[in-house]
Amino acid sequence: MASLECLDESTMSSESPMTTRPPSRQTSVHWATGMRYRNLGKSGLKISCIGLGTWVNFGTQLSEETAEEILTAAYESGINVFDTADLYGGGKAEIMLGKILKKKGWRRSTYIIATKLIWTGKSDIERGLSRKQIIEGVHASLERLQLNYVDILLVNKADSMCPMEEIVRACTYCIHQGMALYWGTSRWTAMEVMEAYTVARQFNQIPPVMEETEYHMFQRDKVELSHPELFHKIGVGTMTWSPQAFGLSGRFDEGIHLISRGSIRNYSGTSDKTASDENRSPRHQAKIHQLSFLVEKLGCTLTQLYIAWCLKTDCVHCVLVGASSVGQLFDHLHALQVLPRLNTNVVNEIERILSNKPIRPPVTR
Amino acid sequence: MASLECLDESTMSSESPMTTRPPSRQTSVHWATGMRYRNLGKSGLKISCIGLGTWVNFGTQLSEETAEEILTAAYESGINVFDTADLYGGGKAEIMLGKILKKKGWRRSTYIIATKLIWTGKSDIERGLSRKQIIEGVHASLERLQLNYVDILLVNKADSMCPMEEIVRACTYCIHQGMALYWGTSRWTAMEVMEAYTVARQFNQIPPVMEETEYHMFQRDKVELSHPELFHKIGVGTMTWSPQAFGLSGRFDEGIHLISRGSIRNYSGTSDKTASDENRSPRHQAKIHQLSFLVEKLGCTLTQLYIAWCLKTDCVHCVLVGASSVGQLFDHLHALQVLPRLNTNVVNEIERILSNKPIRPPVTR
Amino acid sequence: MASLECLDESTMSSESPMTTRPPSRQTSVHWATGMRYRNLGKSGLKISCIGLGTWVNFGTQLSEETAEEILTAAYESGINVFDTADLYGGGKAEIMLGKILKKKGWRRSTYIIATKLIWTGKSDIERGLSRKQIIEGVHASLERLQLNYVDILLVNKADSMCPMEEIVRACTYCIHQGMALYWGTSRWTAMEVMEAYTVARQFNQIPPVMEETEYHMFQRDKVELSHPELFHKIGVGTMTWSPQAFGLSGRFDEGIHLISRGSIRNYSGTSDKTASDENRSPRHQAKIHQLSFLVEKLGCTLTQLYIAWCLKTDCVHCVLVGASSVGQLFDHLHALQVLPRLNTNVVNEIERILSNKPIRPPVTR
Amino acid sequence: MASLECLDESTMSSESPMTTRPPSRQTSVHWATGMRYRNLGKSGLKISCIGLGTWVNFGTQLSEETAEEILTAAYESGINVFDTADLYGGGKAEIMLGKILKKKGWRRSTYIIATKLIWTGKSDIERGLSRKQIIEGVHASLERLQLNYVDILLVNKADSMCPMEEIVRACTYCIHQGMALYWGTSRWTAMEVMEAYTVARQFNQIPPVMEETEYHMFQRDKVELSHPELFHKIGVGTMTWSPQAFGLSGRFDEGIHLISRGSIRNYSGTSDKTASDENRSPRHQAKIHQLSFLVEKLGCTLTQLYIAWCLKTDCVHCVLVGASSVGQLFDHLHALQVLPRLNTNVVNEIERILSNKPIRPPVTR
Repeated sequence: MASLECLDESTMSSESPMTTRPPSRQTSVHWATGMRYRNLGKSGLKISCIGLGTWVNFGTQLSEETAEEILTAAYESGINVFDTADLYGGGKAEIMLGKILKKKGWRRSTYIIATKLIWTGKSDIERGLSRKQIIEGVHASLERLQLNYVDILLVNKADSMCPMEEIVRACTYCIHQGMALYWGTSRWTAMEVMEAYTVARQFNQIPPVMEETEYHMFQRDKVELSHPELFHKIGVGTMTWSPQAFGLSGRFDEGIHLISRGSIRNYSGTSDKTASDENRSPRHQAKIHQLSFLVEKLGCTLTQLYIAWCLKTDCVHCVLVGASSVGQLFDHLHALQVLPRLNTNVVNEIERILSNKPIRPPVTR
Repeated sequence: MASLECLDESTMSSESPMTTRPPSRQTSVHWATGMRYRNLGKSGLKISCIGLGTWVNFGTQLSEETAEEILTAAYESGINVFDTADLYGGGKAEIMLGKILKKKGWRRSTYIIATKLIWTGKSDIERGLSRKQIIEGVHASLERLQLNYVDILLVNKADSMCPMEEIVRACTYCIHQGMALYWGTSRWTAMEVMEAYTVARQFNQIPPVMEETEYHMFQRDKVELSHPELFHKIGVGTMTWSPQAFGLSGRFDEGIHLISRGSIRNYSGTSDKTASDENRSPRHQAKIHQLSFLVEKLGCTLTQLYIAWCLKTDCVHCVLVGASSVGQLFDHLHALQVLPRLNTNVVNEIERILSNKPIRPPVTR
Repeated sequence: MASLECLDESTMSSESPMTTRPPSRQTSVHWATGMRYRNLGKSGLKISCIGLGTWVNFGTQLSEETAEEILTAAYESGINVFDTADLYGGGKAEIMLGKILKKKGWRRSTYIIATKLIWTGKSDIERGLSRKQIIEGVHASLERLQLNYVDILLVNKADSMCPMEEIVRACTYCIHQGMALYWGTSRWTAMEVMEAYTVARQFNQIPPVMEETEYHMFQRDKVELSHPELFHKIGVGTMTWSPQAFGLSGRFDEGIHLISRGSIRNYSGTSDKTASDENRSPRHQAKIHQLSFLVEKLGCTLTQLYIAWCLKTDCVHCVLVGASSVGQLFDHLHALQVLPRLNTNVVNEIERILSNKPIRPPVTR
Repeated sequence: MASLECLDESTMSSESPMTTRPPSRQTSVHWATGMRYRNLGKSGLKISCIGLGTWVNFGTQLSEETAEEILTAAYESGINVFDTADLYGGGKAEIMLGKILKKKGWRRSTYIIATKLIWTGKSDIERGLSRKQIIEGVHASLERLQLNYVDILLVNKADSMCPMEEIVRACTYCIHQGMALYWGTSRWTAMEVMEAYTVARQFNQIPPVMEETEYHMFQRDKVELSHPELFHKIGVGTMTWSPQAFGLSGRFDEGIHLISRGSIRNYSGTSDKTASDENRSPRHQAKIHQLSFLVEKLGCTLTQLYIAWCLKTDCVHCVLVGASSVGQLFDHLHALQVLPRLNTNVVNEIERILSNKPIRPPVTR
């Protein structure tokens, strides 16, 4: 079978030539924080380039007051993307988020809720990605969130045991029933996303609009090699999260340690033993060391550099951050001010330090 | 790519040859006012050839009593098209219209509500024409109007940043959900309307039924050159509005001035500085002068001539008028009596005065 | 364009060869009255071969008690088809029918309600067969009938001013919304029904399941020449009504007179002046006279012969009858007993008397 | 026309090559009972390999207390499939099942309800498999079950008088309306299931996900010859029931006798006079005798061997069992422990005893 690389835009016959649009994306800017807005992939949905994740602490570590303060600060700073999941805090993240949204009473059109179905975390009898799992999952999330619909329904991990047609039809059903406005994927391979798109076109269903994935300086291959292709060929947008942007540590290596040590581990598909070991290697520590020098020159923190650097990446439409306090959120938002300082020289310097720029393997026939 | 002119009916393969109907349209006439009814484009929806717009003053300049009087007079004169928009009066136009409709209790089948989504007027964070924007916009309009559905959902201006598929699917969704019966466009280019039609056919969605556009003696190109093609090839109907028909002034040039001076300006894509300047030119003033003589001969006002002249245009199915009093409305409706006086001689005289008959540029290859 | 006769089953490519079924229809028989059940066209819906119409008198001439008695007698005799329309008795027929159905509380699965949208009888401003007219019409009928859905939605007369796609999409919408289970046509030409089928196939909408039409000994062409083709090629079933079966008169010629004289006239597309004159002709009177002799030999009434003769016609799936009393209904039902007596000899004798057997014109090329 | 055998996967063009998955199915195991979970056919729905049927006794023979005990024991043993039908106990089986489910309050995502529409058992006027029958049938079942939806809607027996398109569209309608998540068939031939699949693909409707059928040691042809083909070509899964697994008798021959004697007879398409006679034949009795010896060696009961043997069959995804007491249920579940003992030698020994292994007739051309 033809590899992904061989897929050519001209063969995507079900997309009208009329719908092709130029890759350059217009942005508008928030007056106070300099927040930028981008279309999510080639969809019409305008999102802030930084989104707030509720992964680590909503519903568990944070008091409701602090959570409300953070959410309010985010909203007022121009963040309009709030990312959550059914399993975060065993459902408490969605409950807390919904409670705060209800209390604040913001116009529904001013924010975007993305929630994930994490079927892999369910009990044996409920595990498996099926039409039943998807529809019942969305119903349960909406009840916890006290919303009539989520903006983006994200299916977390593909299920090799479930036909793609069933997933695509179930997500389209949720959209046609008004339970979601868009659907997307999370932690899928580019090939799986492409299959979802193909099946959606085959049966005139609605294709996914985005893929959410882990992305940081030390895990670059998927986003930098595959996602531009997904964006340019089928319009799929990218949201990214990374351990350090979730405020797990001021220093990156500590963040990695936290992940490899603890409860968060289960959610992370990539932070396995090997990666963790690699992160403690002297070579890795040397890179962190050199980045610290650079950060000092730039007048920002390592985390701000991490976030700004992600924002700089081609086809990354939204970087999700976490925060355990309003202060930490503002710290992260400062990355927007760091962004303009990442000129060609700085970017080249970072590449020199990292020495891990992904290269597309040569096509062998 | 082939220009619009090269599109041939025989290539519109998804429209059955059986559905082709003759372009001549049967009309029926209101007993008292002589109001005529026409099908909107090639749809089955019968509309009065004059519709009432609520742009300028509903919800703001007019008291509820006056608004109710005007609406009642319009309804009883045989007008069955009421045009409004989410942004008119910041939402107050829809609220006032809905309140009056509820009070009057007319049978739902006796009037047609068209409302527009004016996404360009929204705040930064809500701007952008997306599935979210369209669906949430319709929900908000229906709430303000206290209606279960609008008859025609109009998308005001295309968004070059939103794929046409998303717009067409969202509008079809609103129709399938029973929130609207038809959808159409407002201030779109003929090429954009054609793209919407093509995408609707491609994905078996519902195509737009009409385009609403500015049209008057001094802005003729789009309606006279492109709209007959839209009607004959894809059945799209035309509703028009023009500054003078909205009662901005008894004299056309003053109307133009009002527009160029004030708050209404934002809504008008065409009344830019250049046009305004052009309107004040001696050449333009001379044309107005000559039209005044003609009007005297015809025994009508300049505004009545303007409206009647629009009604005379091929493929214009409905001319929207505004009114700040019942008297002004009846004044406008008198255009129906002027209409028969526009015989070939008079029409030729008008063309001679205007000297701006649009000519299709020669096809160069 | 190819004439209807040239349409070949092999060209109806969107109907799977698998769905072709033999034309012979299995029937089951009611224990008491001998009522037979047939599938409506090639659909799965089983209907009694005699149905009750509420045209003439429900909501107007009949008291509610009598109407209830007739309906109950019909139901208990095995009739499961009740035919009505929005305009019968100005809406009162549906109201009375709905009231009785509610009172009786029969299981919904034991009866079939067919109602017609008679758009031609509406006021000027509401006339026209549009998506708006169809959807609002069904809503109004359901309210009058106090039902959640009708079984068959019948569109009465095609509207040459409304594209077939709009009609087919609106009827399919009503089915998808659960407001109707099937849709059909009434007083359409075979060509119009074929167009509806074609358009339904083109856009993957639901095709019509039946055509309701006038049919009697003196108006045979459409049913006998076109309807077998509609049944065999696209599975459309036939329900018929005729003046005499509506109990307008014990003698056929009187029925015709009644029709040409009175209020019913408007609904009858065929009982025009010429036909009425023809019916009074000596030649016509002679036929009636001869039929009277035949009837005496068969031991039945003229009306019973009329009904039985209709039931005998190939591809007539249901004959609608009216009744102004339970006695008249039972009289009509006795036609089921007359049916077996219509052997080849009798049928031939009738053909000899009528001398009007329709002949398909030779195909000229 | 090509026989079923000639259908080749490569000709099923509407199924994307991407959706093809390997036939081997991953299973997970219940901690206590060893219950295994399998995907139903190639769908994403994970079902326990043993399901509980409510055929024989729910709503009739069993008290509500006993029924609740059995259901609870089944649920806690890892059974997540509960099979019922509208006609079981004249509707009382569904009512009792619904009442218990409501009382227990288990999470909806932890169990799967499959109910059957048994149209052949209806009164004359309601018989016939139509859109009306399917939709009204599901509504009635949901009301009896006090559920918003069933997981699997099963159409019991195909109706040769109803076009497949009508059945497929009605079932898809139920799924799109949220009244069911999947649909399947019961007692259909492989050819009928294939037709349903083909028609679903033709009109972009949802294909059936399973076929429920009788299967036991003395009725093997359909499941062993046709069902693997249905699974591998179109992904349809198999649920089976057999007289002995419904606890009709500890000894198989008695079960057969019970069936041939009594009220259950009507539901059984195959246990006709001939089969019954055949079962009493000396040759048959000899087989039972030899199986009894084998059972002693294996240390289990004849019924447990029957169930385990069914579970061993290729492409049987769920074996439905009945129980009149918790003890009997546990007895049946012990088949899961017998399963590993059915090694190649034992299976071969059973084949030797039965001497009825179905053989596909040679393809003659």
